[in-house]
Parts: sequence; C-alpha cells; structure tokens
Amino acid sequence: MQKGKSKRANVSGLEYFFSPKSVAVVGASRTPGKVGYTVLENFLKSGFPGKVFAVNPEAEEVLGVKCFKSVREIKETIELAVICVPEKFVLKVLQECAERKVKAVIIITAGFAETGNAKETMKLKEFIAKHRNMRFVGPNCLGVLDTQNKIDTLFLPFNRLGRPERGGISFISQSGALGSAVLDWAAMQGFGVGKFVSYGNAMDVDESDLLEYLDRDKETKVIALYIEGVGNGRKFFETLQQVGKQKPVIVIKGGVTSEGGKAVGSHTGSLAGSSEVYKALFKQTNAIYAETMQEVFDFARVFEFEPKIKGKKVQIITNGGGYGVLCTDAIIGAGLELAKMNEKAKSVIRKACPSYAIIANPIDLTGDANSERYRVALEQAMKAKEVDAVLLITLFQTPLLEESIVQIVRGFNEKKTKPLLVLSVGGEYCQKMNAMLERSKINVFDNPAEIALALKKLYEFFGSKR
Amino acid sequence: MQKGKSKRANVSGLEYFFSPKSVAVVGASRTPGKVGYTVLENFLKSGFPGKVFAVNPEAEEVLGVKCFKSVREIKETIELAVICVPEKFVLKVLQECAERKVKAVIIITAGFAETGNAKETMKLKEFIAKHRNMRFVGPNCLGVLDTQNKIDTLFLPFNRLGRPERGGISFISQSGALGSAVLDWAAMQGFGVGKFVSYGNAMDVDESDLLEYLDRDKETKVIALYIEGVGNGRKFFETLQQVGKQKPVIVIKGGVTSEGGKAVGSHTGSLAGSSEVYKALFKQTNAIYAETMQEVFDFARVFEFEPKIKGKKVQIITNGGGYGVLCTDAIIGAGLELAKMNEKAKSVIRKACPSYAIIANPIDLTGDANSERYRVALEQAMKAKEVDAVLLITLFQTPLLEESIVQIVRGFNEKKTKPLLVLSVGGEYCQKMNAMLERSKINVFDNPAEIALALKKLYEFFGSKR
Repeated sequence: MQKGKSKRANVSGLEYFFSPKSVAVVGASRTPGKVGYTVLENFLKSGFPGKVFAVNPEAEEVLGVKCFKSVREIKETIELAVICVPEKFVLKVLQECAERKVKAVIIITAGFAETGNAKETMKLKEFIAKHRNMRFVGPNCLGVLDTQNKIDTLFLPFNRLGRPERGGISFISQSGALGSAVLDWAAMQGFGVGKFVSYGNAMDVDESDLLEYLDRDKETKVIALYIEGVGNGRKFFETLQQVGKQKPVIVIKGGVTSEGGKAVGSHTGSLAGSSEVYKALFKQTNAIYAETMQEVFDFARVFEFEPKIKGKKVQIITNGGGYGVLCTDAIIGAGLELAKMNEKAKSVIRKACPSYAIIANPIDLTGDANSERYRVALEQAMKAKEVDAVLLITLFQTPLLEESIVQIVRGFNEKKTKPLLVLSVGGEYCQKMNAMLERSKINVFDNPAEIALALKKLYEFFGSKR
Repeated sequence: MQKGKSKRANVSGLEYFFSPKSVAVVGASRTPGKVGYTVLENFLKSGFPGKVFAVNPEAEEVLGVKCFKSVREIKETIELAVICVPEKFVLKVLQECAERKVKAVIIITAGFAETGNAKETMKLKEFIAKHRNMRFVGPNCLGVLDTQNKIDTLFLPFNRLGRPERGGISFISQSGALGSAVLDWAAMQGFGVGKFVSYGNAMDVDESDLLEYLDRDKETKVIALYIEGVGNGRKFFETLQQVGKQKPVIVIKGGVTSEGGKAVGSHTGSLAGSSEVYKALFKQTNAIYAETMQEVFDFARVFEFEPKIKGKKVQIITNGGGYGVLCTDAIIGAGLELAKMNEKAKSVIRKACPSYAIIANPIDLTGDANSERYRVALEQAMKAKEVDAVLLITLFQTPLLEESIVQIVRGFNEKKTKPLLVLSVGGEYCQKMNAMLERSKINVFDNPAEIALALKKLYEFFGSKR
C-alpha cells in the first residue's frame, strides 16, 4: 500500500514540520532572491530557536552560515530538511536524508507531476512509500509558516509577501500562489495566523493529515482550508467529519463549476462535482462552507474571537438609521431574528436617551449619540436574556461620538458573555477607531451582509445543532 | 396640488443648488463644531467661487465674514440659502428668503416630520406649496456636496468626514448618516464623486427630481441611489425608467424585509414590498440593483471607467493557478462564459512563455511570469475578436513581476477597446501597485465574486439588452 493512500489521517511525525530542534536547508544559495537563499535567510531572521545547517557543495558559507557539502557531512541530528535543489538532484538528496535519519522533509522543488515528468515522479513516489518513518511535504509547495515556533520556508521575500502575526487561525492551502496572496493580505488586515501549510502535490502529507494534526494543535482555534481536488475522498470526508465536530473548519473549494474543474486540471482521483454536491458533503461533515476567501477570514475571525452563540436573536444598536435598516435586512435575510428586549431594559435605555431616540430593534441612539448613551444601551443588551448576540453600529462621522467608545466596547467584549460584533463604515478617522477596536480582538465589519452571514455561520455551528 | 406631489420629475431651478453665484448661510455660528459654523467654514475653505453671505442677528462677524441681521438686509442677489437655524425660526427665515427672491433653499434643520411636530410640518408644507418659483431641499438633511462647483453644506467636520475627489459618480442618499459614512469611505478608497445629495424629508425636491437632474448633468457618468421609501411611487418608477435608458442608475433599497421596512418607519405613502417586488420593479426600469453599498461602488466604478461590453465571453489571464480557478468559478457562477481565443493568438502567447505555462482559459503564465509575458498575453486577448472582456490576475507576491506591469496595463486600458479588470490580492506591496493602477482609472478588485458580478451587471446593461 502506498503511504499516501492510507485510509486514515496519519499525524505520525508531523510535529517535526512545526517544531523541529534542527533544520537543514539543502540547496542554500548565495544569490539573493533565489529560493535557497530566501529560505535560509528566513530561518536566520525569524528567530527560529533551533540549529540551522546549510548545504551547498559549491559554497564555503552563505549568509554567514558554514556550508556542508552534503547532508551526510552533518554529524548532528537533523529533524527537518528543506529541499530547494533542482529536480534532478532531489532523489539523491532524499537518499542522504534517509541515511541521516531526517524525520521530516519539505520538498519545495517543482517539476514533478505538474509538468508530466512521469519517470521522476514515479521514482519519488516509490521512495516516499518505502520510507515510512520519514514524512514528506510537497513537492511543488511553499511549505510551512509557523508563527509560534518561528518556522518559515516561504521562499517569497518579505517585501513582497508580508507575514501575519501570531494568532489562532491556521490555514492549509492546496495552491501556493493563492495561499501566499491570502497570507500577505491577512498580514495587512491584521489577522493573526498560527500555522500555514502549502502542501503542493501531496505525495505523502495531505490535507487530511494536516486537518487531523491541526485539530490536536492547541494554538489553532479555527482551521481554514483551500482545496481544489482531494486524492483520497473518503479519507478526507471522514477526517473532516471527525475534526469538524470539535473545531470549526472553514472550507473553500476551487473548481466548483465544470469549467473551474477543468482549470484545476487533472488531479489523480479528484472528486469531481458541482457546487451543490460539495456543499451537501460539507454539510454532512459539519464543515463551514465559504464561497470567497474574504468569507473564509470573516468566518474564521468570528469563530476565533466570539463566544458560543445560544440562539439566533440579534439586537442592533446604531447611531444612524440607514445602516440600522440595512443591518435589519441583512439579519433577516440571513435567517436570523431580531431580539425583543424586555421592557425593563428598554426603559433604562430610554431614560439615558433624548426623546427622539428610538428604543426598539434596531435601537437608534441617533446622530448625536455619545459614548455614554452607547454604554447604557450595550449594558442592557449584553445583560438581556432575550438577546443572543449584539450588532453594534458605530458611525464615527458624527463629532459627538468620543474615542472612549473603544474602551466601553472593549469592556463588554472582554466579558464574552455573548457575541458582540461591530459594523463601522468610513474613512481615515473611522479606520483609526476600527484598528483600536480590532487590537482588542473585537470583530469589526463594514458590510451588513458579511456581518450577518458570519453570525449565521456561528449560529449554525453552535446554536442550532447542539 | 402640492408641489411635492407632482407626477413628473421637476428639475426647474435645481441648478441653483449646484452652481449658485451666491450663497447665504443663515444661522452662521461663532462656535466651532456647530452646524452653522461648519457650513460657513466649508464655503470659505472649499474654493467656492461665488459670493458668501453670513446671517446671524447676534454676531458682528463669523470666520472673518461680516454678519447680516437677517436675509432682508442683504441687498445683493442670493441664489442659494442654507438654513441652519433652530426649528422655530425656519418659517420666518423662509418668508424672508421669499421676499428676497432666493432661488433655492437647503433646510438642514431637523425636527419636523420625524419627531411628529405635525403643526409646524403642515405650515412648512403649505409654505413650500405656495412658493412654486423657489426650490427646497430638506428639511432634516445634510444637503449638497458638489466637487466640481465647490458646494459643501455637509455639517460634519473634515477630520471626521473625508470628502472624495471630483469624479463621475453622483450619489443620492435618503439617509444622511448612511450617505456621510459612505462618502467618507469613498474618499478613503479614492473613488471620485461628482455630486452628492442628502435630501432628507423631501418636502419639495425628491429622489425623482434629482435623478432627472443628474441624468442631464454632463459631469455625472453614473448615478448611485440609496432609498428607503418613495413618496410618489409612480413618479419615481417612471423617472427611473426614463433615466435608466441612457445612464446607468445603481439602486440600493433599505427595508426590503418586513422587519427592515418597520425600521424604515412610517414614510408617508412609502411603497411597501419585499425584496422580490422591488427587484422586479427595478428590472422593468433597467436600473441596476445592488444588495450592498460595496456593490453600489463596485458597479459604479466599472460603469464609470469601462467601455461598453459587447458580449459575455471573458478571458482570464493569471500568474497563479488558484485564483485562476476561483475566477473561473465566479465567471461561470455569474452566468458569463469563458472566451475561446483563436489558435493564432494562442500560439503567439505560447511562443513568449515557457513550456509549463498553460495557454487556455485561464491562461496561466505561472509564478515566474514577468511583465513581458503579461504584455504579450494581454495584447492578444485585447485584440482577439472572441474576447469581450479581460480579467487580469496579478499576484504581486512573486518577485519576478516587475513594476512595469502597471505601464503595460495602463497602455491597453487607455485604448478602451473592451473592459479590462484586474484582480489583485495581497498586502502592502500589492496595495502600492493597486493604487498605481487605480490612479490610471483601472478597476482593481480583490474578490473573484465581486469582479464577476460587476462584469455581469455591465453585460446586462450593455451587452444583453441592446
């Protein structure tokens, strides 16, 4: 049986990809910009606490690190090897890694299955099948980013590809280019990422193994997954079913139309199927289906930072009628409901507001609302049993809304009694306020439809099924 | 017959709101932050070329402008008056404006219909109905922003509400708070705006009059409209039908669910109705229906900058397979098609690419594509008769893609032979490149679903119906 064809997820040895005590960069290059240069540079710059070895038969040293002629020459233990050599040298290097009992190998090198080099591909597959106590990521991949353990095999330079801060979202991507674009975008948006894996042709470690591993990873609160095709459908769906019971797994599938499927190309044993088939399968597995990468991260940050939701009754609080209306439409459109707060709570809010404020749902504190008016309304909504989640709209264009609103929202958010999401639309001042809110792990959105959809996913996962 | 109840749009005198030769700010205040202070300050700062008068019976001067005790005292012609006085003084001021033959009045003052002051409201309505050679915007509104003629009656300060640059999108908003939030957001996004009108309670000038006026306005290329309810449904739909034939009108409706409708409140004679009813009505009028404010501006900028589309065949060009797949799904999902470029064109591209590039649809130039590879592919796609629009994906994480791609895309875009839209996802470097593209009026998106939907709207407007 081929190792890659095992029916169950196999996490054995995966820890060496994420927390190795030592790493060898094979094909360390002296030329800035080259893959083997950037990978070595990353390990040196990232704060990786383990030992770093460089292998290059033609160089004395690269980036101040002494070069070994081959992996064989390194006498110390190598837990992880990152292979950046041309295709024709890969098998030889792997053989040496096996001799030196390397635990885990990331084969960044491209040029196997995807360009139809059948003979080399077969040899590589045979080698991997034979070496059952080694694990392999790749070939044709970006490899691993682990913000906790400071692993970074991404060969794209920092000035092109920003690295996100440490966080609870881990992201598995079948596409390296898509993965890196999204990672770069996430870094700019300020979304924290725990682990990122681009697993390429998946000759050994595949999406199922990674799902299972991330399920057990305490640092990972939410798993995001971009897939195009899966080599072993049954293994994938069984793993997803198991993992999805405990941890939110957000999945986006490329190639849901037949034309998109053609663009995916010929992935051996790929599950073909329309959007509807996939959605149905994902539903059975309790995975959270996303249609766009924007949705993936919208859902992920809501699952990461919000507490469990108990029902689908939402209280809207606003200082502008128009966005109150649009959010109402969005909440109802998503299949959620407007909460009906008790009269006592409403009368407390009414007392704190001028007569023209509308204490209903939405609560419209009106355009001259200050932070104190918000505080009273928020306090009542967060306390009211009739309210399962609060959607707070803060339009910062009105000069009477003070900066202290940030502390107030933060205070209620830290207690985490129920989900509290903020909608805030605007320009520079607004973005400054939003950034302050987001630094306190408050989820801020600028689109009523997106905030409602994210809340709906939270409800479907926690509220409706359990 | 009440003037506001006319069955046809009436644009008579509306020009005085947008290009008056003189303006009087009535209720000019000495207190920074107050409405009458900010409005006067805006006229002084904005570069308004006409005469500016200030009226305040209790001040000698405000912001260096001599104050008149009343409008009566101003002997020169007043074309526009902006009224910022408390509710109880409004009628008196209007009477004086009538005596001085003021052409147009913006009543910013709130507190009429929306707080149930029936008697004052009735008096105001009667006054407006009697004075048929004056036009009134408001009450309870932000008024007008005209970036061409430097009119700015928005009373929210610049540090909270950014003003967009001059552009071809004009925006009518029934909600002042929503309008200002969106304007602020548009300013930050770099979207140009021609005219913005917040028309409040619409006792005289309403959405239909403004639609008709903007239809005739050469500066306005696209009209965006946020409405909650319309006072005169027949007038509105007939105007929309007429205007939509020539100029793209993008409409978003607040209160499409029954709960949202309740939140809208009691607008006299409002058209109640579900989302489906409104969509059907908008379809009859050829208006472009949007579900979110994000969509409004996505559609608007595509209509503003793209040429007419002739069919629905799209060519995708990418340097990353994953986003090629997602864009394919999005294009097909939106009901558009993938173009089949002629073999001659494909062979020209093939010659400029390495063997592993995929010359199909999507064309995958692969991760090591440089600007020259893009240039060849773009040239052929822009020339090919089989292609109605080009969706160009530029993932800037790969260091081999040079900055010169911006000049190349700009060159093809300036010829405007067919729509050319860019999808670009990423962080800081990517945003820098995107900004350079956008300064050349190239539409850049970061979401395949959004770019496909915008193209679909363009096709529905130009390609399918004419």
